[in-house]
Amino acid sequence: MAKEASATMTLETVRDSLSAQEDTIIYSLIDRVNYPLNSKTYDQSASLIPGFAGSLVEYVVKETEAVHAKCGRYESPTEHPFFPENIPASVVPVHEYPKILHPVASSININKRIWDIYFNKLLPLIAAPGDDGNYASTAASDLKCLQALSRRIHYGKFVAEIKFTDSPQDYEPLVRVQFQDSDALMNLLTFKKVEEMVKRRVEKKAAVFGQRVGLDDSKPDQKPKIDPAIVSRLYDEWVMPLTKLVEVEYLLRRLD
Amino acid sequence: MAKEASATMTLETVRDSLSAQEDTIIYSLIDRVNYPLNSKTYDQSASLIPGFAGSLVEYVVKETEAVHAKCGRYESPTEHPFFPENIPASVVPVHEYPKILHPVASSININKRIWDIYFNKLLPLIAAPGDDGNYASTAASDLKCLQALSRRIHYGKFVAEIKFTDSPQDYEPLVRVQFQDSDALMNLLTFKKVEEMVKRRVEKKAAVFGQRVGLDDSKPDQKPKIDPAIVSRLYDEWVMPLTKLVEVEYLLRRLD
Repeated sequence: MAKEASATMTLETVRDSLSAQEDTIIYSLIDRVNYPLNSKTYDQSASLIPGFAGSLVEYVVKETEAVHAKCGRYESPTEHPFFPENIPASVVPVHEYPKILHPVASSININKRIWDIYFNKLLPLIAAPGDDGNYASTAASDLKCLQALSRRIHYGKFVAEIKFTDSPQDYEPLVRVQFQDSDALMNLLTFKKVEEMVKRRVEKKAAVFGQRVGLDDSKPDQKPKIDPAIVSRLYDEWVMPLTKLVEVEYLLRRLD
Repeated sequence: MAKEASATMTLETVRDSLSAQEDTIIYSLIDRVNYPLNSKTYDQSASLIPGFAGSLVEYVVKETEAVHAKCGRYESPTEHPFFPENIPASVVPVHEYPKILHPVASSININKRIWDIYFNKLLPLIAAPGDDGNYASTAASDLKCLQALSRRIHYGKFVAEIKFTDSPQDYEPLVRVQFQDSDALMNLLTFKKVEEMVKRRVEKKAAVFGQRVGLDDSKPDQKPKIDPAIVSRLYDEWVMPLTKLVEVEYLLRRLD
């Protein structure tokens, strides 16, 4: 089943999609830095929402995911909820997505790690201090960033599928050895040159998309809206390692 | 009340905010064109959601607005719901927003017109034909565009307040004459040079932000993700005229 459909997807078309998703991530982060930190959005102890034990952002994400789930969002192989235990069934007719992935793909969801990194590592680096009261808008903007990062990182499933079907002779022996040798699998999945190129590309994109554009080109350059070095670091330390984690998790169960 | 607080806001700071909001609108439109038209999202007759009489996008917007409303989104003077009749009360403590506008501002909401223009005029110009099944994501992307346009257009309230407090001698007589002479008011609010400058600026921004950025600068230029001429037209035909409509509505009630 998985094999014939993957013929329409190549490592090149997957990489094109990953590049387009970089743009979405950068636009979303720039949108988020329009708001100050707005720390009340994240305060677990504040119990801002009566009857809800959690922060305002948890409330907005859970409730918005429930709305989207009813509309079939999480039937798509590219979408993963942050609160899967909270997800109602889709009520809309099922769309026939191309069958590319092994069925085991649907059980892989590392959004808890993405959530942790986004709020505890990335957000403190990019958000300016302050409170403008726009907590719901801030939470909606966070959700957009989380979804863009999640889609990009879980796209590792497609990357792994293509790599596997392109060179089963390299991957099958390592997958059969299973957990004993997942370092070897990680090495096989790592293309240092591609990773360096991606880091430079996202840095350049952040500089281009984060420009403050006016009609007067003679004005001295202003600071871009988001530090390109932080976007490069986001990819180096978190996006690319987590993508490979998804790839390994998928491949280890690819022969089930 | 309105006067002392507006001292911190000038026509220049308001125009800076409007310029920043242009960026948000353009990023949102670029995000939307990542999806094809996905016309099932808008089909009134499909009744995709059992028990809900309306299109999928109406369901997503209504339900998402209800979540945000509980978190206080529509207490902010810059935020306006598309389905105000559906809005539950905020359950979070009230944030003290600076009091700049006359209280009549809260009764002005032209989102029905923005909705109509977005779905019937703009979307057919920018979305490619096709159906990829991602209706919930598409609707969420539409909501982001609608909110960005709505915030920008209703910012006309602040523009009008500043113009009024800067030159009450020009505005008061026209406001007192009321509806009989709202053309004169519209003329007073129109700065042709500024409008031409804004149209050129948004066109330039769409070209900059919509670039397809790779590391290889020698590649022939590819088509930008969104046609800059359409963004200029969006401002010329819809955003700026609707902003002035908000300004007129606000000013006509400014002395109530």
